Amino acid sequence: MDEALNSPMFAVFTVVLVLETLKTLFLGTATAYSRLAPKQFLNQEDADWLGGKAVTVGHPTTARLMRAHRNNIENLLPFFIFGCLYVVSGASAMAGMIYFVAFLIARSAHTFAYLTKRPMLRRNMYSMAWLAILATGGQAAFAILRGAL
Amino acid sequence: MDEALNSPMFAVFTVVLVLETLKTLFLGTATAYSRLAPKQFLNQEDADWLGGKAVTVGHPTTARLMRAHRNNIENLLPFFIFGCLYVVSGASAMAGMIYFVAFLIARSAHTFAYLTKRPMLRRNMYSMAWLAILATGGQAAFAILRGAL
Amino acid sequence: MDEALNSPMFAVFTVVLVLETLKTLFLGTATAYSRLAPKQFLNQEDADWLGGKAVTVGHPTTARLMRAHRNNIENLLPFFIFGCLYVVSGASAMAGMIYFVAFLIARSAHTFAYLTKRPMLRRNMYSMAWLAILATGGQAAFAILRGAL
Repeated sequence: MDEALNSPMFAVFTVVLVLETLKTLFLGTATAYSRLAPKQFLNQEDADWLGGKAVTVGHPTTARLMRAHRNNIENLLPFFIFGCLYVVSGASAMAGMIYFVAFLIARSAHTFAYLTKRPMLRRNMYSMAWLAILATGGQAAFAILRGAL
Repeated sequence: MDEALNSPMFAVFTVVLVLETLKTLFLGTATAYSRLAPKQFLNQEDADWLGGKAVTVGHPTTARLMRAHRNNIENLLPFFIFGCLYVVSGASAMAGMIYFVAFLIARSAHTFAYLTKRPMLRRNMYSMAWLAILATGGQAAFAILRGAL
Repeated sequence: MDEALNSPMFAVFTVVLVLETLKTLFLGTATAYSRLAPKQFLNQEDADWLGGKAVTVGHPTTARLMRAHRNNIENLLPFFIFGCLYVVSGASAMAGMIYFVAFLIARSAHTFAYLTKRPMLRRNMYSMAWLAILATGGQAAFAILRGAL
């Protein structure tokens, strides 16, 4: 276990997690900030405080940032779960680093494509990240269960 | 720690996490796919690309898959947090395996009930998974804090 | 690693995770319960079963609980990821405990502010928790990458 945490693979896992988690945090904050200019808020007390009105969805930019944020959460959780299993599984460090970097590239490009309205790139990067998550989980489960049986 | 990761309990935890995370991933993908046939998309650029129109909620099947997906995320995160604490807590392996399997059964049946519109089964399975999460977290916290004090 | 898991810092991390995860779970359940009195449900089969009607958003109380719940999920995941990295990073235990407790205080006050409609307190506590998450992740990444290089 201590070896796994002092490996280059764990350093790569850390970098990917930090960048993807920061992106998720900033998308959440950007969603909130984007409500200020059009003065469209989710809560009546915010509208009363800052001047404006309470809405259900909000400005198209707000709605887009919110969808990109939600999509980040929905993919970051599976990646984190499978990545943790991978790190402790004893599976190939080289394969792990490839999966983690592929996830980072695909998810960075996915957010770029979401915010710049490029649907084909968004779909392809969603799929690439999806495959990287699946490969991470599959190989981790195989290594853990082979060791346990 | 290394013992905990080579135990049958960790193998059971791995299987439960893999199945529940895969279910969550597939529900997310199914939500996206379900937009194709009715041609109702969340983004205007998707509607322009694939033909169709941009909507806020979408077809009832899409909305149902999205709710089932969201419910999975909302329960998978607490289970993963408490499960990780449990694995490192040194608490009873037998109890842990029972909680983890109860969670898996309840959440599998919950998704089945959601997609096949069985509200009583859905409520009961939601409650069963909720209790399994609570038991996991409570016993883990007890063991960790008893060891620390 | 075993030292890290037997430290006072890990006990503090456990307490913070248990309280925040329980709050998240209870907000989810409160959202569901809040649909009973106004008889406004997300699913047609629930409306048929319990009497009432199916709606997209629901009663203002339900919508508020749901937003508070969602905000909890969106912050608990980044905190858990960065907190796990921190625990294994070997970074200062004292700093870690300060960040974790700051997160707990800020997020508890955030939920209080959300449910009692205090927008300034809510914004300030959101920002304080955000900074605590950032400090946790930044210091963890620094310690891990310094050890790996």
